[in-house]
Amino acid sequence: MLVSGRKEPFVPQALPLAELRQKIGVNAYTGSTSGLAPGYLQANLVILPADWANDFLLFCQRNPVACPLIGVTEPGCPFLNDIGADIDISRHAPEYHVFYNGQFDTSVADLSEHWRDDLVAFVLGCSFSFEDALVQSGLTVRNIEQGRNVSMYDTQIACQPAGRFSGNLVVSMRPFTSQDAIRAIQITSRYPKAHGAPVHFGTPAAIGISDINTPNYGDAVDIFDGEVPVFWACGVTPQNVIRHSKPPICITHAPGKMLITNLLNNALSVL
Amino acid sequence: MLVSGRKEPFVPQALPLAELRQKIGVNAYTGSTSGLAPGYLQANLVILPADWANDFLLFCQRNPVACPLIGVTEPGCPFLNDIGADIDISRHAPEYHVFYNGQFDTSVADLSEHWRDDLVAFVLGCSFSFEDALVQSGLTVRNIEQGRNVSMYDTQIACQPAGRFSGNLVVSMRPFTSQDAIRAIQITSRYPKAHGAPVHFGTPAAIGISDINTPNYGDAVDIFDGEVPVFWACGVTPQNVIRHSKPPICITHAPGKMLITNLLNNALSVL
Repeated sequence: MLVSGRKEPFVPQALPLAELRQKIGVNAYTGSTSGLAPGYLQANLVILPADWANDFLLFCQRNPVACPLIGVTEPGCPFLNDIGADIDISRHAPEYHVFYNGQFDTSVADLSEHWRDDLVAFVLGCSFSFEDALVQSGLTVRNIEQGRNVSMYDTQIACQPAGRFSGNLVVSMRPFTSQDAIRAIQITSRYPKAHGAPVHFGTPAAIGISDINTPNYGDAVDIFDGEVPVFWACGVTPQNVIRHSKPPICITHAPGKMLITNLLNNALSVL
Repeated sequence: MLVSGRKEPFVPQALPLAELRQKIGVNAYTGSTSGLAPGYLQANLVILPADWANDFLLFCQRNPVACPLIGVTEPGCPFLNDIGADIDISRHAPEYHVFYNGQFDTSVADLSEHWRDDLVAFVLGCSFSFEDALVQSGLTVRNIEQGRNVSMYDTQIACQPAGRFSGNLVVSMRPFTSQDAIRAIQITSRYPKAHGAPVHFGTPAAIGISDINTPNYGDAVDIFDGEVPVFWACGVTPQNVIRHSKPPICITHAPGKMLITNLLNNALSVL
């Protein structure tokens, strides 16, 4: 919208989903999707060549808490009716990371230069869905409150290997009082497709985290007196596994810049 | 059963519910009901004069986690169809405690000497129901494993007062690893009529417990490295409240010697 010849500042939070997606599709927005299109399910993306896809499908089946599958495309096709027929998975995330042989190579705003007829996209649930449910239930999610990325940590918990894929679980952490942690366990249990209930709370060292104040990914957040760190399986786990397993090519969304789907978060809830 | 003129030892665990109840009804068994009639709901009892009953009914309504109401009798009638038409509440608990003006007076095996036309019985859910569910789910309940009564503690958490009733919450404690605690929170959330989810875990001092190894009621149990104490609201809370509120007469079951109903534990589960 033009006002007196001057362009209004772009406020993605204010955009309805269709307009936001259009902006992302033409690379006019390449930022974080945290807090955008509230209520809509945001997803992790893992894109692999077809000859690695079966191994990864089995990896997801064996590690459903870290890798909750929402859907898998046919080879070469970047569309998936289950999440929205108008979503081009190769264009509608704000930014993508391209890995060769497990090594990060480049960030791109769309996959027009990288898409191939043999690529299969895995759409995986994301903790943004349960954070929305926690906030709706009146809990304070510290990373949201402090305007930071969630704290994420490598652990010594081994995933169940599948074919050429193996590696350790990555967890996200949110601090709560024990009363709020109990409530958070109840609420997130209702979202098995968004990592579900926590995998651990309390002593970080028990799962191989040596310094809670130095996350391996994301930002540190304050943990106040009387709070315990609560750990959920994290959608960064596949990126950890890919580094370890070295497929010739793999493409993911850039952390925090998720694929926004047409599904409602609450459509994922059970019970 | 007589074998060669010698009486077989009495093994209440082996008795079907009807025979066990008959033994209890004639005061041939006055022991603990822990582990008896597995699968059947056991209940806390609070019996008050009718002119104190409305206050206690309101107290239960305001404190449903500590006092989950299964049913309330009509004044003077010791029967309640909802729990089993053949259950005489004045005879079918193994032992009763009689309090005058909030002070414990005597233990009796039945209420034939104490029943009055104005007495109202409150039948309240009991943690035995969720312990059964925890064990069925493969968790180890330490007090059962160690053959001890559960550890119970006075807290500084005030109940919501109602009329003449007020006092602090009593909690029971079971230690678990964090992974098992998360599972225990999920399972007990399904039993709101048996105290439901925990009210606290971790630091005992946060709820006014100064020494976890010295419970106010029941027995201490071992807490091993890597375990956290998990606290549930406890059916001993009404006895605490009665001491504090001093009704002229109050009768309860003796701790651990519950009223066994015809309801199944699983009939109480939700979700």
